[in-house]
Amino acid sequence: MLKRRLMTPGPTQVPEEARLAMARQVTHHRTPEFKRLFAEVLEGLKEVFQTTHDVIALTSSGSGGMEAALANTVPRGDKIIVLEAGRFAERWTDIGHAFGLEVIRHEVPWGKAVDPGDVARLTSEHPDAVAVCSTLQETSTGVVHDLAAIGEVVGPTDALLLVDAISGGGVVECRTDDWNIDLLVVGSQKALMLPPGLAFVAVSDAAWQRIKAVEPQAFYFNLSTYRKKLDGGPDTPFTPAHTLLAALAENLKQIHAEGIEAIWRRARRLARATHAGIEAMGLELFAERPADGVTAVRVPEGIDGLALPKRIEQRFGVKLAGGQAHLKGQIFRIAHMGIIDELDIIGTLFAIEAVLYEMGYQVHPGEAAAAASRVLAAAEEPVVAT
Amino acid sequence: MLKRRLMTPGPTQVPEEARLAMARQVTHHRTPEFKRLFAEVLEGLKEVFQTTHDVIALTSSGSGGMEAALANTVPRGDKIIVLEAGRFAERWTDIGHAFGLEVIRHEVPWGKAVDPGDVARLTSEHPDAVAVCSTLQETSTGVVHDLAAIGEVVGPTDALLLVDAISGGGVVECRTDDWNIDLLVVGSQKALMLPPGLAFVAVSDAAWQRIKAVEPQAFYFNLSTYRKKLDGGPDTPFTPAHTLLAALAENLKQIHAEGIEAIWRRARRLARATHAGIEAMGLELFAERPADGVTAVRVPEGIDGLALPKRIEQRFGVKLAGGQAHLKGQIFRIAHMGIIDELDIIGTLFAIEAVLYEMGYQVHPGEAAAAASRVLAAAEEPVVAT
Repeated sequence: MLKRRLMTPGPTQVPEEARLAMARQVTHHRTPEFKRLFAEVLEGLKEVFQTTHDVIALTSSGSGGMEAALANTVPRGDKIIVLEAGRFAERWTDIGHAFGLEVIRHEVPWGKAVDPGDVARLTSEHPDAVAVCSTLQETSTGVVHDLAAIGEVVGPTDALLLVDAISGGGVVECRTDDWNIDLLVVGSQKALMLPPGLAFVAVSDAAWQRIKAVEPQAFYFNLSTYRKKLDGGPDTPFTPAHTLLAALAENLKQIHAEGIEAIWRRARRLARATHAGIEAMGLELFAERPADGVTAVRVPEGIDGLALPKRIEQRFGVKLAGGQAHLKGQIFRIAHMGIIDELDIIGTLFAIEAVLYEMGYQVHPGEAAAAASRVLAAAEEPVVAT
Repeated sequence: MLKRRLMTPGPTQVPEEARLAMARQVTHHRTPEFKRLFAEVLEGLKEVFQTTHDVIALTSSGSGGMEAALANTVPRGDKIIVLEAGRFAERWTDIGHAFGLEVIRHEVPWGKAVDPGDVARLTSEHPDAVAVCSTLQETSTGVVHDLAAIGEVVGPTDALLLVDAISGGGVVECRTDDWNIDLLVVGSQKALMLPPGLAFVAVSDAAWQRIKAVEPQAFYFNLSTYRKKLDGGPDTPFTPAHTLLAALAENLKQIHAEGIEAIWRRARRLARATHAGIEAMGLELFAERPADGVTAVRVPEGIDGLALPKRIEQRFGVKLAGGQAHLKGQIFRIAHMGIIDELDIIGTLFAIEAVLYEMGYQVHPGEAAAAASRVLAAAEEPVVAT
């Protein structure tokens, strides 16, 4: 009789409307009906991503979108700068190496944010770098980077700005065009509230210019091929995961009804309530600059960091994410994106507190939810010491 | 009040059990539950593909699987032979060119089957070719190639045999191991009865040896990365479209209950019934060697080949596929794969005949369904003059 609550930063909970859309009998995708749906979805995503430029839909995980961004814009042997501040940022480096690029790795300790001043130094030290690769919300550490400031630094240079917003897009403030982001990659299974299977890439005009001039190391991920299919009623070069696109159309209705700026503010409120609850338990946030879509929490001393989320899941059905790579057992992570709401957050804080109490950790049952409730009740923007 | 019947050779109809599985709330994919499901699915696919070797699951369309097959086994500059007998076979050539391979194109007129004797000549003329690329069921023309004979020719050579069985796998007889197929690519939205979004690649031991020796032109499609994740409870390097995998587990239950050999025989019976109905209308098959999963029919003279399937869809809700590329308006195509059954075939033949009659073509209403019924009623293997 355990009720399951998915509180991981991807996959996230999928709204019922989208799930029912996926239960419908499959239709064909080379039809005027599909083109209408696809046009509607692509137009809707532009608002979510705050761009007026093209959005390309790929049937792949988010990593496929990152590969598309790099393999179409940077020829073999050329130099890129990777702002490596977590496990997902490392993926840019891995892709760069796979395609024979020269990678300048700017390694930032996990949990810290990228300093835009460092980016300015790096771009001036490496004027021949053709791309700067960053993450928006680094899901592995719960950090959000200051992409507005990074974009201001990269904008005037010749380098393109490539941003992995796989988990951030649609939940964390992101003004793609205003912030000079040339290629923004977003995944389906995060704030867009879908199952995994789609990646989206927003492509600036400057990026298209570069793409035209570069021999792509790509076939399935050749962005020009996708671009050609956008004209005259958008279509796709390869069979798309069109049942996910139909489900996305459902989710976009809800996203647009609320408005993207309101969604960003809601996520921030949930994040701050989460922070307040965490601090009320005497725990510490892991991120120096906490993201609005996911909160990473240090496992307190004396508590088994692998057992904690497992016990929370077994006892309450609440699925949290643990730490990855060297952070395994060191942190746990709580998502606040998509349809995760205030009750989910209050309930999750209760569950964490209850299990910590059972594990003998010094907490006072009720304080976490109370602290979070006070933040959620406050009419004005709450002040939280993070 | 139009009842829709999808009769296209992909996407195909999805069984209710699979659709309901996709309507379930999403769960996390880094769990023991997912590993159990994934192990079950991969094991089940081995039987469907008639292989004892590894099956790799990619989140992409079938074309992504074809790219994976080539980009991992053939280094830039090396030579491949492509048996080009239709639109989908051409994709091997396109991928080869995208990755800088030398492509020996064996162009076969559309509608004809590859002659295994030609393959023998080509492999002896090009002993340096490292791969022979074929299609099993060429969906664009309705032809099935003699992969048993082609495999017998390629087997003793140093070349790997790469087969696009995207639409054929699971419906057309295909004995991957026995026929020396080294890389078999199958799509989700055909005989496996899922929405699009997954591609599967069965990889022989010889192919793994080659893969180890070759620098892949791949990151997302790097098969070695996927291989490493199969050990110790199978997992995936990138977030998989796991709701489709859950739906596949449902479909595999039905596939195994019937048995793959019985499914092949059932498709053959439906194909022959379709052929009989088509001939009863005085129409001609397009394929020289008709496939069991799809029937391509020549549009008769005097009939508008673009209007015909449109009218059938508007009048009866039956969705057929038209011709592609230069076959546009020249042929139409009827699928018989997955859960398409005898009633679907009889109904489809009725609908075609009724619309031809309306369009003034000389048919005798009832004869098509009657001819197909006689084939379906016959206890023994029917003899059809094709």
